[in-house]
Amino acid sequence: MALWSGRFEEGVNEFTQRFGASLPVDKQLYAQDIAGSKAHAAMLARQGVISDEDAQAIDAGLTAIQNDIEGGNFVFDINNEDIHMSVESVLTKNIGDAGARLHTGRSRNDQVATDTRLYMKARAADLMRANVALRQALVEQAEKHFDVILPGYTHLQHAQPVLFSHHMLAYVWMLTRDFERLRAAYKAADANPLGAAALAGTTYPLDRFQTTAALGFDHPIPNSLDAVSDRDYLLDLIYACSVSSMHLTRLCEEIILWSSAEFGFITLSDSYSTGSSIMPQKKNPDFAELIRGKSGRVIGDLVALLVTCKSLPLAYNKDLQEDKEGAIDAADTLHDCYVCAAGMIATMTVHPEAMMAQAKKGYLAATDVADYLAKKGMPFRQAHEVVGHLVLLCDKRGCDLDDLALADFQAESDLFEADITECLNLEAIVAARTTYGGTGHEAVRVQMAEAKEALACDEAAAARLG
Amino acid sequence: MALWSGRFEEGVNEFTQRFGASLPVDKQLYAQDIAGSKAHAAMLARQGVISDEDAQAIDAGLTAIQNDIEGGNFVFDINNEDIHMSVESVLTKNIGDAGARLHTGRSRNDQVATDTRLYMKARAADLMRANVALRQALVEQAEKHFDVILPGYTHLQHAQPVLFSHHMLAYVWMLTRDFERLRAAYKAADANPLGAAALAGTTYPLDRFQTTAALGFDHPIPNSLDAVSDRDYLLDLIYACSVSSMHLTRLCEEIILWSSAEFGFITLSDSYSTGSSIMPQKKNPDFAELIRGKSGRVIGDLVALLVTCKSLPLAYNKDLQEDKEGAIDAADTLHDCYVCAAGMIATMTVHPEAMMAQAKKGYLAATDVADYLAKKGMPFRQAHEVVGHLVLLCDKRGCDLDDLALADFQAESDLFEADITECLNLEAIVAARTTYGGTGHEAVRVQMAEAKEALACDEAAAARLG
Amino acid sequence: MALWSGRFEEGVNEFTQRFGASLPVDKQLYAQDIAGSKAHAAMLARQGVISDEDAQAIDAGLTAIQNDIEGGNFVFDINNEDIHMSVESVLTKNIGDAGARLHTGRSRNDQVATDTRLYMKARAADLMRANVALRQALVEQAEKHFDVILPGYTHLQHAQPVLFSHHMLAYVWMLTRDFERLRAAYKAADANPLGAAALAGTTYPLDRFQTTAALGFDHPIPNSLDAVSDRDYLLDLIYACSVSSMHLTRLCEEIILWSSAEFGFITLSDSYSTGSSIMPQKKNPDFAELIRGKSGRVIGDLVALLVTCKSLPLAYNKDLQEDKEGAIDAADTLHDCYVCAAGMIATMTVHPEAMMAQAKKGYLAATDVADYLAKKGMPFRQAHEVVGHLVLLCDKRGCDLDDLALADFQAESDLFEADITECLNLEAIVAARTTYGGTGHEAVRVQMAEAKEALACDEAAAARLG
Amino acid sequence: MALWSGRFEEGVNEFTQRFGASLPVDKQLYAQDIAGSKAHAAMLARQGVISDEDAQAIDAGLTAIQNDIEGGNFVFDINNEDIHMSVESVLTKNIGDAGARLHTGRSRNDQVATDTRLYMKARAADLMRANVALRQALVEQAEKHFDVILPGYTHLQHAQPVLFSHHMLAYVWMLTRDFERLRAAYKAADANPLGAAALAGTTYPLDRFQTTAALGFDHPIPNSLDAVSDRDYLLDLIYACSVSSMHLTRLCEEIILWSSAEFGFITLSDSYSTGSSIMPQKKNPDFAELIRGKSGRVIGDLVALLVTCKSLPLAYNKDLQEDKEGAIDAADTLHDCYVCAAGMIATMTVHPEAMMAQAKKGYLAATDVADYLAKKGMPFRQAHEVVGHLVLLCDKRGCDLDDLALADFQAESDLFEADITECLNLEAIVAARTTYGGTGHEAVRVQMAEAKEALACDEAAAARLG
Repeated sequence: MALWSGRFEEGVNEFTQRFGASLPVDKQLYAQDIAGSKAHAAMLARQGVISDEDAQAIDAGLTAIQNDIEGGNFVFDINNEDIHMSVESVLTKNIGDAGARLHTGRSRNDQVATDTRLYMKARAADLMRANVALRQALVEQAEKHFDVILPGYTHLQHAQPVLFSHHMLAYVWMLTRDFERLRAAYKAADANPLGAAALAGTTYPLDRFQTTAALGFDHPIPNSLDAVSDRDYLLDLIYACSVSSMHLTRLCEEIILWSSAEFGFITLSDSYSTGSSIMPQKKNPDFAELIRGKSGRVIGDLVALLVTCKSLPLAYNKDLQEDKEGAIDAADTLHDCYVCAAGMIATMTVHPEAMMAQAKKGYLAATDVADYLAKKGMPFRQAHEVVGHLVLLCDKRGCDLDDLALADFQAESDLFEADITECLNLEAIVAARTTYGGTGHEAVRVQMAEAKEALACDEAAAARLG
Repeated sequence: MALWSGRFEEGVNEFTQRFGASLPVDKQLYAQDIAGSKAHAAMLARQGVISDEDAQAIDAGLTAIQNDIEGGNFVFDINNEDIHMSVESVLTKNIGDAGARLHTGRSRNDQVATDTRLYMKARAADLMRANVALRQALVEQAEKHFDVILPGYTHLQHAQPVLFSHHMLAYVWMLTRDFERLRAAYKAADANPLGAAALAGTTYPLDRFQTTAALGFDHPIPNSLDAVSDRDYLLDLIYACSVSSMHLTRLCEEIILWSSAEFGFITLSDSYSTGSSIMPQKKNPDFAELIRGKSGRVIGDLVALLVTCKSLPLAYNKDLQEDKEGAIDAADTLHDCYVCAAGMIATMTVHPEAMMAQAKKGYLAATDVADYLAKKGMPFRQAHEVVGHLVLLCDKRGCDLDDLALADFQAESDLFEADITECLNLEAIVAARTTYGGTGHEAVRVQMAEAKEALACDEAAAARLG
Repeated sequence: MALWSGRFEEGVNEFTQRFGASLPVDKQLYAQDIAGSKAHAAMLARQGVISDEDAQAIDAGLTAIQNDIEGGNFVFDINNEDIHMSVESVLTKNIGDAGARLHTGRSRNDQVATDTRLYMKARAADLMRANVALRQALVEQAEKHFDVILPGYTHLQHAQPVLFSHHMLAYVWMLTRDFERLRAAYKAADANPLGAAALAGTTYPLDRFQTTAALGFDHPIPNSLDAVSDRDYLLDLIYACSVSSMHLTRLCEEIILWSSAEFGFITLSDSYSTGSSIMPQKKNPDFAELIRGKSGRVIGDLVALLVTCKSLPLAYNKDLQEDKEGAIDAADTLHDCYVCAAGMIATMTVHPEAMMAQAKKGYLAATDVADYLAKKGMPFRQAHEVVGHLVLLCDKRGCDLDDLALADFQAESDLFEADITECLNLEAIVAARTTYGGTGHEAVRVQMAEAKEALACDEAAAARLG
Repeated sequence: MALWSGRFEEGVNEFTQRFGASLPVDKQLYAQDIAGSKAHAAMLARQGVISDEDAQAIDAGLTAIQNDIEGGNFVFDINNEDIHMSVESVLTKNIGDAGARLHTGRSRNDQVATDTRLYMKARAADLMRANVALRQALVEQAEKHFDVILPGYTHLQHAQPVLFSHHMLAYVWMLTRDFERLRAAYKAADANPLGAAALAGTTYPLDRFQTTAALGFDHPIPNSLDAVSDRDYLLDLIYACSVSSMHLTRLCEEIILWSSAEFGFITLSDSYSTGSSIMPQKKNPDFAELIRGKSGRVIGDLVALLVTCKSLPLAYNKDLQEDKEGAIDAADTLHDCYVCAAGMIATMTVHPEAMMAQAKKGYLAATDVADYLAKKGMPFRQAHEVVGHLVLLCDKRGCDLDDLALADFQAESDLFEADITECLNLEAIVAARTTYGGTGHEAVRVQMAEAKEALACDEAAAARLG
């Protein structure tokens, strides 16, 4: 019989038992559930609501249960529909009346919110650390191949030459923003609902500041209705995962392109590749594809919770039982993706010569030739048009800009002089982009220092979260 | 070592093993995988590609494996990353070279597509049957309380009186459309990809029409690239589940409203209610809430697969490994929701007197009073305005329309005569809505017959799908 | 003053006027609104509810209004919050009492559903025709370059050689399925809600079968509550658009890859390319990117309507006013994308030699070499491993399989003989894939005939829908 | 001819012109575009890239154009595909070569990012102010009806009595969190991409810190690739809008419930209600429904941009042109919803007696009766069961707990004494919930002070953003 069955005449059948149970999902929160109960019992005793003996019996009993669970000696019974009932019913069986006093001044509504917030704080901290590790891997590859030039793309067309390190750092900055979103999700979870009871608070003289301190929360939630119905902290976490997951699709799209025969810019380690059951020659970037594909489920998790919360009146509604699975899935998924991407990036082999070979195609110097004219006084729009004609000429001849004779240049504008050749050298073109944030070597060195400073700072912050 | 590891020098570490494995999800497809392999082997033998002895050994070996799996005697090894490898590697261990010939002219790309399509056909058929059962439960309640009147609502405001049966049938029609969408999903899955091999077909003289017939598919897929990359049939199934799930949110929203103290229109069976861990008086419509809440995950599953498929070049990409989990989840979820809703509807108690009491409030006769004037020649727009004034009068007096004196009516229009009282009787108002599709008793009887005919027809169709 | 303002004491202020108005969106439905009103008036007259004179005055008055709207001489007044009020109030101003009789036995709830269904049938038919045109463009390119070989990819790695025509036809089949979904959406819209009135039907002797025939609907909707609250037909249309839009992202992803310097498989026409404001050499596949990017809004439209419909009790709720904008946006967007893609495909230049040059890289013959061994009796799994070793050998030497000496082959297996060279020729490899649905020339010819037959059939079906 | 047409031989046809144009959307950004151009020109002059005369001509020319646009005297030509080209081409026509020098060291890629960020900062600030106004309206209603008691609900069942002010404040806290998300979105936008040029920076000696200061950005973006490809700031804004929009669905769901005949807790002002075209008595909470329904489009906008960004390689891709429309729509929609909700809340009439009448039903005292027993030493779980039996007794008798005789209580437990009646008074029950965050009058007074302090603080912060 369920613990709330006093007013019921009929039992609940097996199907509804299974359908209504949250245990398969929320048993992952056992440690948080036990920690919350211990803090609640200690506070009840300090406030004189229960005796010290009862509190000690509860504490010891919960420790024993935790040991049983972690030792694999705890039998979860689906008749206890959730982790709270599972723990409490065994506790009461083991220690008697003291166990039955644990739920004084508490409801499952505030209890589950407490467990989930504690759990999600831990998951957010894990994600922050994995985020730091991936950024570290990207920074290391960037430093290792600092000077390597590859074609910069817009519209997947060759645009202007850029440093490989500059390209890697673009992803580091995306991930740095993701760290901030994860931190915001952590903060959103860091408030204590315990003491809100079912929805209205309680008549017992609870001290919510005591449990707040004991459980390491930042502050107690100031409204009991809000405390049991708020799921924003889960949305914030899934959203942070969604955006970061989307960023990883961009990184992995490039890894996949770069691994193709047509690009040939990198070779992935065998550890991050797989073969085909039918085609013996295949070496597939499966893990990059999986990471890219997994963005779907994370974004799906975000939509799921927004839909579930839509139109719910206050305060708690059972719909909210659906809150945890998606959030756990999003956190698990992104964590695995971070770990996998970090390993894949750290072990990939970069082919500088292939990158440079491609950088030499596609008129990557064209912008600099236009700038050459503009610096000599031609309005930029006219210079753009002049170079457009030169490119068309190359296209027809099947050659590149540096294959043109000076006369070809001068036929389009008499501003061209012999020094135009300096504008056609890729190293020089890159080096000339000296302004803050540009791809010039000096500018990238400055940027690298900033990225590493942010990384060190975030690493320390994540470590502090335990 | 993985079966495709010939060209690889390094092993794959434990993390990537787990991250890359689809086994935890696709082992549910074991029966379909074995059926597909048997059909493939039989066809290979008939085409002379393998010997009859090999085909028989394969068939017997696969039967033994299926027995082992179903008897709980099969050890799934995560080193065999998917169900295909799991079965084949054990088969080859058990029967030797014959097992190693099974994969001739086949790739995991067409194999997994075959398994998944077979599986989803079965799930779609299950859903169709559960859909029929829920419609049956609604029809039965509608027949049981055929004449009961409740307020019909627009904007959750009392609008016009309607029959309870008419209201229930509205949901039956929604579910009838859902049945069509499920049928379309079944048909989308009902095409055979086997023989497409990795992406291009094969050089073996396969007869795809043979496997098509053996596996009960409607036709072979006409393009091998499409055969291994198409996931539309999964989208169609998840979409069908999403819309039906949304329909159930509407039904459950009403169940929840009707169960509230304020409405009091129904009482749910104890079997479909739960209590509170803190509030002893509570009897909560948890299951209606859960069904409503689960719409989130189904719609999330739909978004997930659309996102995963976006921008994938042909033909197979590993991203597609993410296809099955969401589709299975959507099908599982909707199936449980159908079953739960059917039980909840079948066992609920309807309170006709509470419905009628509410129907008497809110001036539900107002439209008919306006029609009364319009039928006497007043343009409808003017009649509408006249009745607006009468309603305002009632509002100020705190009375209802049938509390007004004839003089009150005549003060607004001299078209009113003593027979206006006939327009104020709820039974008469309902009965007067005689046109096809209206809430009049006769019209609903016609409608009921049509709904039951569609139901019988769909029940038979679903039964035929096995 | 609004037409429903009889019972109201205060006016509605300017902000709520704008916020509540649907006119900016639904004025696009003017022609359907007028057609629906004409059919309603004619039926009212035939049933004796209004006089023939009134019906004729209404018909003439509506014709005049339609001419004014189409001639740009109709002033839409936001005080008339929707298209229905806009037309009716001007009609009544123009023709007097007859106009005020038009709304007899009708509500805006069934009126707007009628208008929207008529409109969406037309849009679905437009989309079906544009779908056919895009398939036509793909078929034409496939026929023009029937024999061209390009590398077939899985995981964006070279897998096996395929015919360009086979590759194009894969998209034709996707679009053929999309046509079916559009057809289903058309059918979903093809039912008449007129006569359901506000929610319950009406006391007037309406003949719903008459308006059904007059408006070209398939049948009247059998339940009045469902008639005013059902929006499945919009979901079905947006869903059809979403899947097709996703298919276009796959096509456009390939167009963009193929247009890159690294692939160089095609050149887009200047008409379907744009330049850069800063980089004079750029020729960007902007339109392929735009089509790819627009998938977001279509999928967003689908989510939007599912969310809006979630948890709405029966029957009509104002939330549903949000239904049309997304559906129109999805239909507009996909239509433009179809037209743009058709033009882009029709005008692109294919580079067979670049495709063949790539097909020669990446050991595309490997599967056939393994099949060679398997056909000589070696179990396929062993053959796969042997070829894996050969590929590794090539990788180390930096050569391709056809650069190996016979002795190299024989060092791995003595089953290799001189005829192995026949397995290394790409044309022969393609031609050997003769089974139904494979990439062999003969098989593709069969497939092409089937695709064209389906195309002709769909073209005729779409044309019939007017 | 387009400004980038130098290398093109063919014109672009009318359809692609329209399909490719962003002008209909981005012309809303004219003021930001002009401000960005002025800052860029001033910086170019200060750095000696262009002359002071040119800079002054540009500045004056841009001011004239802004005046023309705001005066309605500017003709937008779709041939200029976006706002940037529209302004620049007219500028050059008006002031000659100086205009053609404006684009020096700049690309549309960094220009559009700059415009959009400036625009979104302004929109976020608007939303923050509207958020504050809505909280103000809720706080005022809470203060006005501070002591009013209504039933607190879980599962839409009566649970425990709560103060109306406590209930209103729950929404205030949700909106306070929304304010933080809007602030985060503002900060995400507050970084300067100008100077990133197309993707790589530029060879001109730009001073990005100068334009950063001139445009009021917090800092320049440290990586040029990231500067032109990052759209996180739009996602953050749409996400903030999505969550807040979801919160409003909860508020509006309650408004709609409370306005129903069954609840009757509030009456909406006529200004925030509408009538029916057919039912003269109707007074519908249309605006609450519209706000609730509009959550769909906002969540759809979020999905749309996540999908659009998925799998885009670096740096700029035309897909990103789709970024603005959804963000503007989400911001517009939420802003209107905030304004509408504030007006609706401010003008609604609360019916304390109806709330109290409902609060007296449903055994709201049951928890307190169980607490009574628990405080006398009975373990809470047993107390819960005892009260369950009492409730069942009432259910059978059709009475409430305070209708029971002391003997009835004592029949279940001899711990009951005459003072049990004190536990049955609703005022006393509410008052007894004194702990922080509870619904007791004192606790709510503390909470109100905190909510108002946060409100004042946020109001000041939003005001500072101009």
